[in-house]
Amino acid sequence: MPRVVVDVMPKPEILDPQGKAVLGALPRLGFQGVTDVRQGKRFELEFDGDVDDAVLAEVEKMAETLLSNPVIENYVVRVEETA
Amino acid sequence: MPRVVVDVMPKPEILDPQGKAVLGALPRLGFQGVTDVRQGKRFELEFDGDVDDAVLAEVEKMAETLLSNPVIENYVVRVEETA
Repeated sequence: MPRVVVDVMPKPEILDPQGKAVLGALPRLGFQGVTDVRQGKRFELEFDGDVDDAVLAEVEKMAETLLSNPVIENYVVRVEETA
Repeated sequence: MPRVVVDVMPKPEILDPQGKAVLGALPRLGFQGVTDVRQGKRFELEFDGDVDDAVLAEVEKMAETLLSNPVIENYVVRVEETA
């Protein structure tokens, strides 16, 4: 059964304090070479039928209205085959 | 420049209250057909050099020690080409 994944990330121009906190912690844990870290949300949605274009259009609307804040976040909707 | 993405999701057997909250809200907003929603975190890491196997091994360690809680979360590390 395929599932639909919605990735929600802060817009590039928006400050990402969580990402900055992780970026700051990495050298203290001995990790080098990381120039930037951004943290967002990942949603996995499962459906009781096939995932067709109509379902993907619905998920776009869900992402726009519920899963993300379009003022400060971007989202990407994609289908993922489950193992 | 490629970036490394770390997806962190609650383990299947772990209760996911955020996912359940979204699942409960969808019908109230007029969305039907969704049988399950799980919410996790997505990290995008950028590096000042090439992303090779050594870097990916480091990211696995970052995911294990900082980005996820291995007791209740699973993580997946992958390379993503940036547009």
